[in-house]
Amino acid sequence: MGKVFVIGIGPGEENYMAPAAKEGIISSDVIIGYKTYIDLIRPFTEGKKVIDSGMKKEIERCNLAVDLAEEGATVALVSSGDPGIYGMAGALLEVKHERKSPIEVEVIPGVTAVSAAAAVLGAPLMHDFAVISLSDLLTDWEVIKKRLALAGEGDFVIALYNPKSKGRVTQIEEARNILLQHRKSTTPVGIVRNARRQGEEMVITTLEEMLTHPIDMFTMVIIGNSNTLVQDGKMVTPRGYHL
Amino acid sequence: MGKVFVIGIGPGEENYMAPAAKEGIISSDVIIGYKTYIDLIRPFTEGKKVIDSGMKKEIERCNLAVDLAEEGATVALVSSGDPGIYGMAGALLEVKHERKSPIEVEVIPGVTAVSAAAAVLGAPLMHDFAVISLSDLLTDWEVIKKRLALAGEGDFVIALYNPKSKGRVTQIEEARNILLQHRKSTTPVGIVRNARRQGEEMVITTLEEMLTHPIDMFTMVIIGNSNTLVQDGKMVTPRGYHL
Repeated sequence: MGKVFVIGIGPGEENYMAPAAKEGIISSDVIIGYKTYIDLIRPFTEGKKVIDSGMKKEIERCNLAVDLAEEGATVALVSSGDPGIYGMAGALLEVKHERKSPIEVEVIPGVTAVSAAAAVLGAPLMHDFAVISLSDLLTDWEVIKKRLALAGEGDFVIALYNPKSKGRVTQIEEARNILLQHRKSTTPVGIVRNARRQGEEMVITTLEEMLTHPIDMFTMVIIGNSNTLVQDGKMVTPRGYHL
Repeated sequence: MGKVFVIGIGPGEENYMAPAAKEGIISSDVIIGYKTYIDLIRPFTEGKKVIDSGMKKEIERCNLAVDLAEEGATVALVSSGDPGIYGMAGALLEVKHERKSPIEVEVIPGVTAVSAAAAVLGAPLMHDFAVISLSDLLTDWEVIKKRLALAGEGDFVIALYNPKSKGRVTQIEEARNILLQHRKSTTPVGIVRNARRQGEEMVITTLEEMLTHPIDMFTMVIIGNSNTLVQDGKMVTPRGYHL
């Protein structure tokens, strides 16, 4: 009986890939993942069977990983960031359970996108924060809106995963409008594209101005709490220390 | 003029320390950090000036790092996990700003404790989640309680940092009681101590039973949302896929 490693490669470049992730890939017979992520780890996949697939085929990929592990293979199912945060770890465990498969599963955590984006911006996550995906493909939009409002009311720093895609453009506008009911329009907002990998771009703006900047599916949006400041071009949420 | 790297070493063992973190340490002249974390990176500090300090000396450590960088040194200020999540990144940037210091600062993100704990438990963070510190040393307890209630109402998965220490024992009890007003007593709760490092221990329990298990400052507590399940001994929050 084989094994599936669910591996987080972090932001994408080798300097943020943990040795445990690299070892998991190297010790696997088969590598499965979304094409963009497979390309990022190409240096470690030589001589291995590599199966890349498009987006929105998560369950197919999980079933394939379980099939191969049941045949005795060691399989690396690769996610960017941390596979435990909107990644492949949950789907794989659900498929394994559904199939009553006795394969072994090991989740290897990685640096998640919100950590990478925060490092680029400065230190926006030094206080309590909420992580919300704006993708309503699998979650009712009313649930997401309710969470945005409550996170706004609770003065959480708010990190938005999947803020916008080609087919989903209005959610980020609605999210901003909800948060404007709880935060000043001058609240700092950090927008980071391709955090800590090739093509990194960032801008620090405000809740008022945020929609004038490009946002897409490679972007993380971090909205400050009522204490968040911009200092020397960095976005910082004070923890409350007396300096 | 020198530089300060604010470095996240991840859970603590070398296999989860990103190459970027290791390189930051190796390229520094001086290493500053809380003693426990310094011990974890001892293999990379040979021949360097190492300054370890006790807890609750964060601002002192930041001032020292800025002093040394202003004298021309390259300084590694080391945190466990991710320095951008309740770590040293914010305090260092605040101190730099307060002192109008022209030193360069680079934040190197790491695998944060909630990612490490989630990987041990299975996949509890597959849906929107709130990260809340129960430490009221720097934050008013009323604010924390309000956030717990709102995160409970919003059906966020909830990750509790700093759940309990020798001098702070009642907060975790109050937090549980607040969440019991919004979640069933059977809601899965994962408790992980020393996630992904030596001495790792975990238990999956319920909101009803959670206080019967040991919790301390090396522990992360993750409370499921209304859909979180325990399957094959793993804690999984479904994303909503049709299997």
